Amino acid sequence: MTRPKRVVICGAGAIGAATAYFLSAHGAAPIVIERHEVAGSASGKSGGFLALDWCRGTPVDRLARRSFALHAELAERLANPWGYRRLETFGGVAAEGKTARGARRPWLSDSVAITGQLGSPDTTALVEPRTFTTGLLRAAEAQGAEVRQGTASGLVRDASGAVRGVILEDGETVEGDAVVIAMGPWSVLATRWLPLPAVYGFKGHSLVFHTGDAIPAEALFLEYEEASGEVLTPEIFARADGTVWACAVSSTPALPVDPRHVAGDDGAHERLEALCRAVSPALATAPIVARQACFRPVTEDGLPLIGAVPEVPGAFVATGHSVWGMLNAPATGEAMAGLILDGAATPVDVARFAPGRLKPFHGLR
Amino acid sequence: MTRPKRVVICGAGAIGAATAYFLSAHGAAPIVIERHEVAGSASGKSGGFLALDWCRGTPVDRLARRSFALHAELAERLANPWGYRRLETFGGVAAEGKTARGARRPWLSDSVAITGQLGSPDTTALVEPRTFTTGLLRAAEAQGAEVRQGTASGLVRDASGAVRGVILEDGETVEGDAVVIAMGPWSVLATRWLPLPAVYGFKGHSLVFHTGDAIPAEALFLEYEEASGEVLTPEIFARADGTVWACAVSSTPALPVDPRHVAGDDGAHERLEALCRAVSPALATAPIVARQACFRPVTEDGLPLIGAVPEVPGAFVATGHSVWGMLNAPATGEAMAGLILDGAATPVDVARFAPGRLKPFHGLR
Repeated sequence: MTRPKRVVICGAGAIGAATAYFLSAHGAAPIVIERHEVAGSASGKSGGFLALDWCRGTPVDRLARRSFALHAELAERLANPWGYRRLETFGGVAAEGKTARGARRPWLSDSVAITGQLGSPDTTALVEPRTFTTGLLRAAEAQGAEVRQGTASGLVRDASGAVRGVILEDGETVEGDAVVIAMGPWSVLATRWLPLPAVYGFKGHSLVFHTGDAIPAEALFLEYEEASGEVLTPEIFARADGTVWACAVSSTPALPVDPRHVAGDDGAHERLEALCRAVSPALATAPIVARQACFRPVTEDGLPLIGAVPEVPGAFVATGHSVWGMLNAPATGEAMAGLILDGAATPVDVARFAPGRLKPFHGLR
Repeated sequence: MTRPKRVVICGAGAIGAATAYFLSAHGAAPIVIERHEVAGSASGKSGGFLALDWCRGTPVDRLARRSFALHAELAERLANPWGYRRLETFGGVAAEGKTARGARRPWLSDSVAITGQLGSPDTTALVEPRTFTTGLLRAAEAQGAEVRQGTASGLVRDASGAVRGVILEDGETVEGDAVVIAMGPWSVLATRWLPLPAVYGFKGHSLVFHTGDAIPAEALFLEYEEASGEVLTPEIFARADGTVWACAVSSTPALPVDPRHVAGDDGAHERLEALCRAVSPALATAPIVARQACFRPVTEDGLPLIGAVPEVPGAFVATGHSVWGMLNAPATGEAMAGLILDGAATPVDVARFAPGRLKPFHGLR
């Protein structure tokens, strides 16, 4: 019997957690290293909206469809502590201070006109991202995975140049047969050690309201015109835990090197709060549970990075899912397990997302 | 049929939530007003340790015993989403960098000597405070309570001087037959409107680690001597959700008027982290889930304020539970419901905690 393959995963977000889950399900021994907090950035603060076919016509379509199915399977297999549920999903328009003509939803004010149904319980669903991420990690641990604190500061290479582990900031070495970079927007820090393309951070603000059962299992994608004429495109999702998550107001400031320093832009939460309170009587006076900001990882061509790092045996990357990280985490983890353990991803071919398609970034060297 | 009694509760922490729960269970219509976040301070960040008889010999003993029993009842009645569970509880000593002689626990390093068992599953238990608070609020809402955002800026008085509601910062009035101040350390702000004693904020720092199932259902109260000779008294609790909560490093800085501005003291989390990693191999490399700081409400005589405000009909206060807020929330809520609806608290007499025993604070007028 050969010893289980040991895989060091840098980053305890949804992608790292899903990769650890599928690796450990196939007999490998992953060790997840996190420098900040488990689910500490987008994996703890994003919306968790899932759609079967909203990536149709794009290279991500098959990955998304597979992942949508895996979400349902995982919720059933792992007792669903993360509130996975199917949703009715609507699109709508509103303008500040105006009454809109058109179809209504009972939980929305008459400033909102529904323009169409964008999804049904067959095609749209929701998870609470932080609990999803920690739930996958716990399931991985039950299968032999390890999760630990640590800041990667370099890679261990053998004489052939192959990656054999990670060197931590305190000098400790965590050995492995392979290393996966799954650090979201902070994956750009790994360009100091590996020929990886740039990953950028796209910032979003969100609020979580306590609503009890005032809003049914629905999601709303809204086009909202402020009195100033500026248009925002908020998304509002009713979660199974009696809260509502809402986002809008994006920006592209510099990514802080330390995730602890991520904070909301001045006035962004206030603007989002005013909007939410205006469009729904159920949100008009609902108390707030959390005010959040996070960065989502995006690449130069808008597609994720999933695969082996060119010319560096043992090095892999999985990130860059932009706003679809929670959706695509399961199928990405499944694909990574196939690539690392068998040299090929199934059932979804991820060759299209190989990092070698983009030029390596040298800006941090 | 008379209309249900409407009670305005200022503060959506554990005390406000428990008061809303018991009021609504007895047919009243509470409305909880929160200016910051639901469970946004100590009710979301404290340890949630419960003990049957650790207040023995003090005036709080009967309240604590009743509350310990109510916690078990509430967990059973409300499906326990907050991870209520019984614990083995130990005391221990350790000194930085030294090996200790004495009894051991398997999850602790040999720097820790166990000095005694402080509690058993019959006498000690744990809840996750944020989920407990939101769970009680949701149960209250199912019984007709309302929870809403709003900042109290004054009180409505009728011609007789009785309190008839709360005036919000935006000018709106929330009417009620009674008003309860349950704003934790920020209850001191209500001394601008009511003859209430001072409430102070006692600051604590905590960390939450992701440990999976590495640590059994145990709590540890430790005396830890740092290399400098300074002694800390950390508390470490293993939660049902696969995390471990640890605190130490207290201070008494000024309370920020806005709860959003509460932040950790410089170096406090780092000091606590170093301690935790030293005393338990299970924490040595466990990743962190949250770094927190909060203020607990304390009074001049160390006892809670529970009861009617002297000379102001319709005004009540419930706060000042210091480190026992999560433990005593249920019995305090039960007592408040009795006081407000029937003029007397049962089964625990809370006359000893009447706010009139202390001089009103005038420092903010």
